[in-house]
Amino acid sequence: MARGFRQKIRQKNTENSGFGNNASGRFINKDGFPNVKRKGVNVFNKLSWYHTMLNLSSFRFLSYLVIAYIVVNLCFAFIYYLIGVEHLTGIDKSDPLNEFIDVFFFSSQTFTTVGYGRIAPVGFMASLVATFEAFLGLLTFAIATGLFYGRFSRPRAYLRFSDDVVIAPFQDVTALMFRLAPYKNNALTDADVIVSTAIEVIENGVPKSNFYRLEIQMSKINTLALNWTVVHKIDENSPFYGFTEEDFKNTDIEIIVQVRAFDEVFSNTVVQRTSYVSDEIVFGAKFVPMYSPSKDNQSTILDLDKINEYQKTELPATLEVQQ
Amino acid sequence: MARGFRQKIRQKNTENSGFGNNASGRFINKDGFPNVKRKGVNVFNKLSWYHTMLNLSSFRFLSYLVIAYIVVNLCFAFIYYLIGVEHLTGIDKSDPLNEFIDVFFFSSQTFTTVGYGRIAPVGFMASLVATFEAFLGLLTFAIATGLFYGRFSRPRAYLRFSDDVVIAPFQDVTALMFRLAPYKNNALTDADVIVSTAIEVIENGVPKSNFYRLEIQMSKINTLALNWTVVHKIDENSPFYGFTEEDFKNTDIEIIVQVRAFDEVFSNTVVQRTSYVSDEIVFGAKFVPMYSPSKDNQSTILDLDKINEYQKTELPATLEVQQ
Amino acid sequence: MARGFRQKIRQKNTENSGFGNNASGRFINKDGFPNVKRKGVNVFNKLSWYHTMLNLSSFRFLSYLVIAYIVVNLCFAFIYYLIGVEHLTGIDKSDPLNEFIDVFFFSSQTFTTVGYGRIAPVGFMASLVATFEAFLGLLTFAIATGLFYGRFSRPRAYLRFSDDVVIAPFQDVTALMFRLAPYKNNALTDADVIVSTAIEVIENGVPKSNFYRLEIQMSKINTLALNWTVVHKIDENSPFYGFTEEDFKNTDIEIIVQVRAFDEVFSNTVVQRTSYVSDEIVFGAKFVPMYSPSKDNQSTILDLDKINEYQKTELPATLEVQQ
Amino acid sequence: MARGFRQKIRQKNTENSGFGNNASGRFINKDGFPNVKRKGVNVFNKLSWYHTMLNLSSFRFLSYLVIAYIVVNLCFAFIYYLIGVEHLTGIDKSDPLNEFIDVFFFSSQTFTTVGYGRIAPVGFMASLVATFEAFLGLLTFAIATGLFYGRFSRPRAYLRFSDDVVIAPFQDVTALMFRLAPYKNNALTDADVIVSTAIEVIENGVPKSNFYRLEIQMSKINTLALNWTVVHKIDENSPFYGFTEEDFKNTDIEIIVQVRAFDEVFSNTVVQRTSYVSDEIVFGAKFVPMYSPSKDNQSTILDLDKINEYQKTELPATLEVQQ
Repeated sequence: MARGFRQKIRQKNTENSGFGNNASGRFINKDGFPNVKRKGVNVFNKLSWYHTMLNLSSFRFLSYLVIAYIVVNLCFAFIYYLIGVEHLTGIDKSDPLNEFIDVFFFSSQTFTTVGYGRIAPVGFMASLVATFEAFLGLLTFAIATGLFYGRFSRPRAYLRFSDDVVIAPFQDVTALMFRLAPYKNNALTDADVIVSTAIEVIENGVPKSNFYRLEIQMSKINTLALNWTVVHKIDENSPFYGFTEEDFKNTDIEIIVQVRAFDEVFSNTVVQRTSYVSDEIVFGAKFVPMYSPSKDNQSTILDLDKINEYQKTELPATLEVQQ
Repeated sequence: MARGFRQKIRQKNTENSGFGNNASGRFINKDGFPNVKRKGVNVFNKLSWYHTMLNLSSFRFLSYLVIAYIVVNLCFAFIYYLIGVEHLTGIDKSDPLNEFIDVFFFSSQTFTTVGYGRIAPVGFMASLVATFEAFLGLLTFAIATGLFYGRFSRPRAYLRFSDDVVIAPFQDVTALMFRLAPYKNNALTDADVIVSTAIEVIENGVPKSNFYRLEIQMSKINTLALNWTVVHKIDENSPFYGFTEEDFKNTDIEIIVQVRAFDEVFSNTVVQRTSYVSDEIVFGAKFVPMYSPSKDNQSTILDLDKINEYQKTELPATLEVQQ
Repeated sequence: MARGFRQKIRQKNTENSGFGNNASGRFINKDGFPNVKRKGVNVFNKLSWYHTMLNLSSFRFLSYLVIAYIVVNLCFAFIYYLIGVEHLTGIDKSDPLNEFIDVFFFSSQTFTTVGYGRIAPVGFMASLVATFEAFLGLLTFAIATGLFYGRFSRPRAYLRFSDDVVIAPFQDVTALMFRLAPYKNNALTDADVIVSTAIEVIENGVPKSNFYRLEIQMSKINTLALNWTVVHKIDENSPFYGFTEEDFKNTDIEIIVQVRAFDEVFSNTVVQRTSYVSDEIVFGAKFVPMYSPSKDNQSTILDLDKINEYQKTELPATLEVQQ
Repeated sequence: MARGFRQKIRQKNTENSGFGNNASGRFINKDGFPNVKRKGVNVFNKLSWYHTMLNLSSFRFLSYLVIAYIVVNLCFAFIYYLIGVEHLTGIDKSDPLNEFIDVFFFSSQTFTTVGYGRIAPVGFMASLVATFEAFLGLLTFAIATGLFYGRFSRPRAYLRFSDDVVIAPFQDVTALMFRLAPYKNNALTDADVIVSTAIEVIENGVPKSNFYRLEIQMSKINTLALNWTVVHKIDENSPFYGFTEEDFKNTDIEIIVQVRAFDEVFSNTVVQRTSYVSDEIVFGAKFVPMYSPSKDNQSTILDLDKINEYQKTELPATLEVQQ
């Protein structure tokens, strides 16, 4: 069941996507990362642990920290226990469990450098291990400091995209549209968008992916504060020119989006990408407005809940210029 | 009382401002942030807490830190108190208040990892909570380290703008002018300015905002060390061509300014924005010089107090080319 | 045995390489750094210690930290010992070695600010040195924090290049090709490549290096997720036009490569460079594909082990246009 | 004694320097910062303390830290002393001086969070102050961490410029030349240079500074690893066309230089600026080579001591095209 387009697309597929035209599956995942797996590198080389740590959710990141803290302390507690509790002062020696509990707490007091001193090392070996543990503790918190900073200072666009692409009437033709809006209190300026598409075509019976750049009506804006409706007119320069509703349904299409803007707080360029596949293209629908004046008429309210709200609309069967 | 311009403006409103032409209120606030409110996102998603922390004043930022420190210690003191003061050595048990005071101080000594040891945990529960508190303390200071660094390393332009825009004679025509100067010991180079305007016009009885780019006489300079007077000539390419003093008074006008420069200390591009509304446009005034040679003639003195000093001047009633 | 090309190269050597044409040895090392040594600056000025620390391997970096920690503590232990162990409480005075061991541990407990207090300073001098050591300890860990962060947040491209450049048939001519692929979970977009070459030529019997920019078939791609085969067609615009297999063997040639891309996690431009010398040019070989669809056809697998796999192929003796 | 040029300069002074043409003294100091003083802002607003801290020498920066540490501890010691030494355990109460010394050391042990516990707070007030001091200590080290990182991660070009500009024969004309070289182990690529000049001219008896951009022979290079000799040909497009040796001597001239490059370790653009005034222009001299092959012919040696070495050479009296 090859879902390829069998007709000729007039626009040249000159887009250098970086993907071969016989890669498989979607090219860009919904979160903007490429849908590629690597092999031939071991796990330590395959993952940049810093990239990995930055992409973890806050909950998982903190959980990993807590687990690491407990594991490290258990290890050191075990070492102190092996060395012998007689090398530590202030240990409750009533039974082995209490001894282990006390060396565990001694370890944590050393690792965090809190060092109350109620339990303290006296022998050579215990002192040596404690010397090393306190050092390790400080380095660990040095790394944690860097990770925290890396996580929250990482420049991100914080854009929300509409779930669907709609194909709607626009001026005197039909257009493919999606919209996006910033949802946080960042200040984005000088935004631009690049949209390309991968269309599965069947040439001489062989399916392959062709890549096309989609021309955007207004591809740069000064301030990205309200929603931005990105419009690609389906005129004779569009690869979708002449497509019917059926063609959209029966062809594997992927719309790849990259938004770039300047964030004035980070003083840095931020980029966010996403992609839409065939299922997310709604033929014959137009978005409803998502911003309105405030009651006192002194500012503008942007309602992010409405970002994917659209209403059905009539379209001609084939997307050609409507006179 | 629609404050719109009823005549035809010849210049095309092709500026992609990113604001709809029926948004309300001013577009850009004086501090450069867009005048937009968001709804449909909950408060945790609406605010980037990092952006928020970076934009706080120093006083409020430090106050929040102190308050957080006290609250956290009160919470932990309460927990230790519930666990029972008998799990801590060295507590003054003369009365419950003294007990609470001592556990509070124990908590702070743990959280900051100072750990004198005069008060120290002996029981399992108190030790466990202290283990966790010391860990939390270190993570908190890791985050604080990142926030401090983020706050003071945030690239900013440190520009002061004149409070008003003046409309003054310039060469053989009239020009709209404002000025700006760096007020700190940063070193800005390769500065450029982009100025656009939103003019409320009434077309067929309906008010709408039109956006125009304003051409600037000298929109790039090599070194931004002295004041920079930004000059927009009101000639036939200006949307203000043909405006009278009355038109400036009776029309809602917003002048939106973006200055971009390279800071050599941050090695980064810095951006500062501001906007002027109708009330801040002074018809018939020109700025007085704000820099002068030093007494020894070996350097130049820039007097920032004078940035908004101007003197009244005569202008023709209608802004057309003056022969 | 001058390994220079004695014929005339038609393409103009207008490339501003930054290297003189009588520098010696290869220009760019395999790791992308220039093959230049400096003298006339002392070692403190010659090395940016921060650059040095960032370029160390993890193992050496950690080793240096541990060694520094031990050396610092030995120094302070020596000072405390000189001051006299009677200025410290809790010292095991059974013999001089034990005394030294205890002051060493006291030093480490001070440097890391763990401060158990079992050993504590009582006299003026010991207290003063301890005051300074704790301060130094905190500054040291402040610096270590910065170094750790600098090391892992340093934007890098993480690209793997093929070991060799191949000269293979391509479309209707012959082309020089190498390939590269990202091997970590970073997300590179908007990649471009610049390739130049240094060819040793003999003009009037004098060898000199000429620099040429090599035209690349597709020098920019949108997403750098799969492998990228960089292709330079050896047509009449190429400096290698007319070269024989012998010429490639007997001429000192260096191919200098610079890849630049935008990393969305760092939100920064990353650059990686490498170079190929004569020995790494394989005449008459073509690369085998290194990516394939996954078994479920839902994504693409990139096999990095294959990055340098090529198979021998026939080429005409002289690289001219093949009809 | 107006040191202005009284003849007509044919080239247009269209350079937007950002300096007025009646500013006084040199425009750019040798270190690249503009020679401008500000008034009308108080000292807290005039200085960005972060910029100030980043520009301090290492020695002064560390000295300030040590002084701050001592001052803070003296203040806290004074507070503890006022509260009363009976609120602290373990104080040597033999005489007031010893008391003060002990509270001073207690303060430092609290501020650094080393907290041995030999001296520990027992009363409410002393505990409260200690709670606050430990907190302050940690925040201080958080700030110090940021400053250290800011200082050593600050992207800098590390370029050394020749002390003088020379005017030397070049190809068939005369040229103004200076040179620069990187002196550290950073890797600079894609370097470009912008050179402009301020010439004091006397028009109608009034001295003013005119600014001109100087055309550079090769203003971009790929790799900045060896020295770079920047060449401005004094032909009919140069403002110095027709200048005599006397004119160079008797006119106030400033050559303003900006070098920009990409540092691959910082992954950032770095900029360095400098300027040359009349005294630093040497008429009739040319630079001697400063790099040579290594003994084993495997790399190139750059001798930074030679950066300002030049030898005298003959020049025609007036700088016109030499046939």
